[in-house]
Amino acid sequence: MSIVLSRDSQVRVMENTVTNAEKYFGQFCSLLAAYTRKTARLRDKADQLVKQLTDFANTENPEMRATMRNFAEDLAKVQDYRQAEVERLETKVVSPLKLYGAHIKQTRAEIKKFKQVQKNEIKQLEKLEKLRQKSPSDRQMISQAETSVQRASVDASRTTHQLEEMIDTFQKQKLKDLQKIFSDFVTIEMVFHAKAVEVYSSAFQILESYDLERDLEDFRAKMHGVYGHYDARPLKDTMPSPAVPWALTGQNAQTTIRSQRRDEEESTEHSAEEDPVEDLRGQGQAPQQ
Amino acid sequence: MSIVLSRDSQVRVMENTVTNAEKYFGQFCSLLAAYTRKTARLRDKADQLVKQLTDFANTENPEMRATMRNFAEDLAKVQDYRQAEVERLETKVVSPLKLYGAHIKQTRAEIKKFKQVQKNEIKQLEKLEKLRQKSPSDRQMISQAETSVQRASVDASRTTHQLEEMIDTFQKQKLKDLQKIFSDFVTIEMVFHAKAVEVYSSAFQILESYDLERDLEDFRAKMHGVYGHYDARPLKDTMPSPAVPWALTGQNAQTTIRSQRRDEEESTEHSAEEDPVEDLRGQGQAPQQ
Repeated sequence: MSIVLSRDSQVRVMENTVTNAEKYFGQFCSLLAAYTRKTARLRDKADQLVKQLTDFANTENPEMRATMRNFAEDLAKVQDYRQAEVERLETKVVSPLKLYGAHIKQTRAEIKKFKQVQKNEIKQLEKLEKLRQKSPSDRQMISQAETSVQRASVDASRTTHQLEEMIDTFQKQKLKDLQKIFSDFVTIEMVFHAKAVEVYSSAFQILESYDLERDLEDFRAKMHGVYGHYDARPLKDTMPSPAVPWALTGQNAQTTIRSQRRDEEESTEHSAEEDPVEDLRGQGQAPQQ
Repeated sequence: MSIVLSRDSQVRVMENTVTNAEKYFGQFCSLLAAYTRKTARLRDKADQLVKQLTDFANTENPEMRATMRNFAEDLAKVQDYRQAEVERLETKVVSPLKLYGAHIKQTRAEIKKFKQVQKNEIKQLEKLEKLRQKSPSDRQMISQAETSVQRASVDASRTTHQLEEMIDTFQKQKLKDLQKIFSDFVTIEMVFHAKAVEVYSSAFQILESYDLERDLEDFRAKMHGVYGHYDARPLKDTMPSPAVPWALTGQNAQTTIRSQRRDEEESTEHSAEEDPVEDLRGQGQAPQQ
């Protein structure tokens, strides 16, 4: 009976191997699928930020407009890399882990089959034992039972070897796949992070080279309406009196005219810049024109 | 009236500046807060994966156990950096953007105050106009109304200058803060990604140096129970007959005994390794003993 017991303990090792694989591969699969989904959510949020940065850029003066557009473009680039990361995680990490479900089911069926063969061997052994106790003189019956035991044992032995081989292959594949899947995970993450460092370095340069003073000059000019259209100056002479305090804000009279002119100019020359829905790349070159 | 009109157009520029800042800073704030939250969710998922990898490591043979533990430790390190990223995004990006709410409210209140002063100027001008038409000869009344207009205009002019200065400061601060906040965002992201590249490079080495063959040898030994305890061999002689096929699996008889012995040995020597809840660092050295 010790062979049967040893087989029983061996089958327990096999079952543990498969049960563990099922449990942990299942958890790895669902956790990495969740990790991939959360990464996609992060990309979505950053995409929305890119959209808002672009819209905002269109409301700013040329200096900040160019800075925000270029920054938004870099941020969009990082999201493109993140999208590639998501797709690669799905293909090379989550999918192979999902395939394990079918693989494990098959192995489990094989173990079940073996257990039935093993049960039959025990049944035949018990039958023989009973016969030996009940009718120790019935040589023919005992001989028949011994043949049945022998046949059942041959079956059990053969199945054991098959199962051993299968579990060996299963374990080897499992270990190989684990190494492969997590190496792929690490490679995908590493490539993404390296690309992100590269793009953010460029984004940092963009933000660093932003010229605040130049931007403020534009803003002040817009506020005071001094855009160099000196031909509009004579308007000042129509002011009630230079002594009246509001004459000091005489320049403001030009603001209305100036801003109307700018509106006209922009509606013909730079209309694309005013439309936040317009294609980003097309706009990107407008400020340099 | 053209001065009043120009002031009106100027106040519109100011209002647009503040309204735009309010709109976009609000959106940047909520999007970056969401981005930070999604990053924290990603960290949570990866932390769960670390936990499962560690649990799984404890069910594996020494080779895979060490590999998975070291890999899990590196993955945990990346999450520590992600946690630092989350904290820094909250402190240096989301919080300053939130502060803008109060800042904008204050500026809006100032503009409202100016508009009231402006309204008063218009009221006084209208009053004067009416008097001039109705009672052009009432010099005293007209003189009084002119004084009121002048006083209202002085108020409006002074308030305009104050407002201009405030908006100038507001715009300067806004542009400076935008540059600072997004530079900080980029720096925080860059530092995180650079650290991640570093840690994943180490993780890749860990997975690459995993010895599959050594692991399989351990597994096969466990399956067949050949751990070199040859003193158990005499059991083989108690087998029914070498001719009976199940004698071929005689080695399996040792499996039970062997696995019982191993259980005893491990319960004294390596009990820590069998307990998945045991402290990781303490266990990390056990396989080398």
